[in-house]
Amino acid sequence: MDSVGEQCERSICVNNPYLKSMKEDILYHLNLDTVNHDLPEQFGDVKFVCVGGSPLRMKSFIEYIAKELGIADPKGEYPNICEGTDRYAMYKIGPVLSVSHGMGVPSMSIMLHELIKLLYHARCTDVTIIRIGTSGGIGLQPGTVVVTRQSVDTRFRAQFKQMVLGKTVVRRTELDVELAEELLQCGKELGEFKTVIGKTMCTLDFYEGQARMDGAFCSFTEEEKQKYLSEAHAAGVCNIEMESSVFAAMCKLSNIRAAVVCVTLLDRKKGDQMTSSHEVLHNYQQRPQTLVVHHIKKKLNAFKST
Amino acid sequence: MDSVGEQCERSICVNNPYLKSMKEDILYHLNLDTVNHDLPEQFGDVKFVCVGGSPLRMKSFIEYIAKELGIADPKGEYPNICEGTDRYAMYKIGPVLSVSHGMGVPSMSIMLHELIKLLYHARCTDVTIIRIGTSGGIGLQPGTVVVTRQSVDTRFRAQFKQMVLGKTVVRRTELDVELAEELLQCGKELGEFKTVIGKTMCTLDFYEGQARMDGAFCSFTEEEKQKYLSEAHAAGVCNIEMESSVFAAMCKLSNIRAAVVCVTLLDRKKGDQMTSSHEVLHNYQQRPQTLVVHHIKKKLNAFKST
Repeated sequence: MDSVGEQCERSICVNNPYLKSMKEDILYHLNLDTVNHDLPEQFGDVKFVCVGGSPLRMKSFIEYIAKELGIADPKGEYPNICEGTDRYAMYKIGPVLSVSHGMGVPSMSIMLHELIKLLYHARCTDVTIIRIGTSGGIGLQPGTVVVTRQSVDTRFRAQFKQMVLGKTVVRRTELDVELAEELLQCGKELGEFKTVIGKTMCTLDFYEGQARMDGAFCSFTEEEKQKYLSEAHAAGVCNIEMESSVFAAMCKLSNIRAAVVCVTLLDRKKGDQMTSSHEVLHNYQQRPQTLVVHHIKKKLNAFKST
Repeated sequence: MDSVGEQCERSICVNNPYLKSMKEDILYHLNLDTVNHDLPEQFGDVKFVCVGGSPLRMKSFIEYIAKELGIADPKGEYPNICEGTDRYAMYKIGPVLSVSHGMGVPSMSIMLHELIKLLYHARCTDVTIIRIGTSGGIGLQPGTVVVTRQSVDTRFRAQFKQMVLGKTVVRRTELDVELAEELLQCGKELGEFKTVIGKTMCTLDFYEGQARMDGAFCSFTEEEKQKYLSEAHAAGVCNIEMESSVFAAMCKLSNIRAAVVCVTLLDRKKGDQMTSSHEVLHNYQQRPQTLVVHHIKKKLNAFKST
């Protein structure tokens, strides 16, 4: 048996002293609970959790990784574990869990609270969580994959503000350095597309907050927009998306190795609208999946050979 | 033809001077655009838009209102207008549009930007938008329906902070007074459940931000939680949810009559978890729909008889 120190290091931290005394824990938005489900039996072997906004994309991810790991279901059936709710979708194959998180920080936050409790109740150890998503790039060729070093706010600070009982609590948003470097290395090994490492700006909306001029409201000029994007670029921001801050903050607090891997769908310095064809966008969206599957295969092979 | 003044009063305002000069507007997350879709033809007759978090609930809403208005599709087919994306779902029957918005302010914000542009491009007039949702109540019997007078933040202020180019812009979050009173009256006429009018607190998360002690993190005591909820109650807050602030702010800016009608699923002073049975919760969730359908029927009948 591991020493206590090692256990702490490898297991999930829930920073909530009241959880242990609850007779039942209902993970409401996942449609799971600790009474009607044997969570250690169902999820105890999970080592990799991949999360992304779209439920359909997370379903195609589980089909893809199952095939790549040689453990595809012969009937091609991957039931949605969260069936009974349409808030989130969840799929599992072997040590890999694939979960959708919807769009934006609050939607990510609800899913993560319940996912972290799920992993805790299931007594999982050595878990890695990776967000695979899409983003707008700054000064990058569309299709470039960005591995996030740290998530920054709209003033380029590596922090996430959480309101607790009406007061602001500031949390750090750095992601796992070693994991980010490993993922960058995977991109080099694949050689199929450009992969970079940098800061990711996380906003609370897609239009005004990301300096887009094509929303229902716009109160600034093209010049002011370009100035702002240039400032972001100068501060090291490679791309902009909507979930990385709370993801980084919550995984850090829970002692979970975490990474954010997003493809850029367009260069925001050159425009706001997603004008590429569906085929091109679909091809781009596949790239974070390809990168992460390569990483997971490497890790599982290394584990087998030890 | 209406005078210019009347037109302004009745039509949708897009506060964006650049929109008119765009050759094409791609409503990316709705999978609609102005080139491949005849938006005035498809949506020009819309007078009521009902929005809610869950796509399935918004589908059942369109089936329900179609039946109640006597314009149900004989085959019971209500195609998802946003097919091709799983970000949002949209259904239409006669003058009623039903759209899902996911969970949280950012997800609501993306949908609303694109919905407001859709209504603008379609040259809709006299549109009413109503959010029908679920919430946690404060000191109310579970199942009570709350019509929101104004949305307040976690410090009980009627404001929404929008980041624009890294700077904070503060927007007001009052909802239409007359519409709220009409909805309250509808509740009285139905007499099937209790309906009240009051302030609604809008938070950026479901757990810590709403003083829940059953999330992955909790840093406060039961006493501190009760104190905070009592302060909210004293400030006039009837219920807590996650989308009303940006909804109120954006509808106000766009000159759209708007209301928020949420049922309370539990009394937060008595607990955090959703322990009621699925049947009970489902019955509660039906109530905002019943209220809003009653309102729309009344309005359409009044319109017919003039």
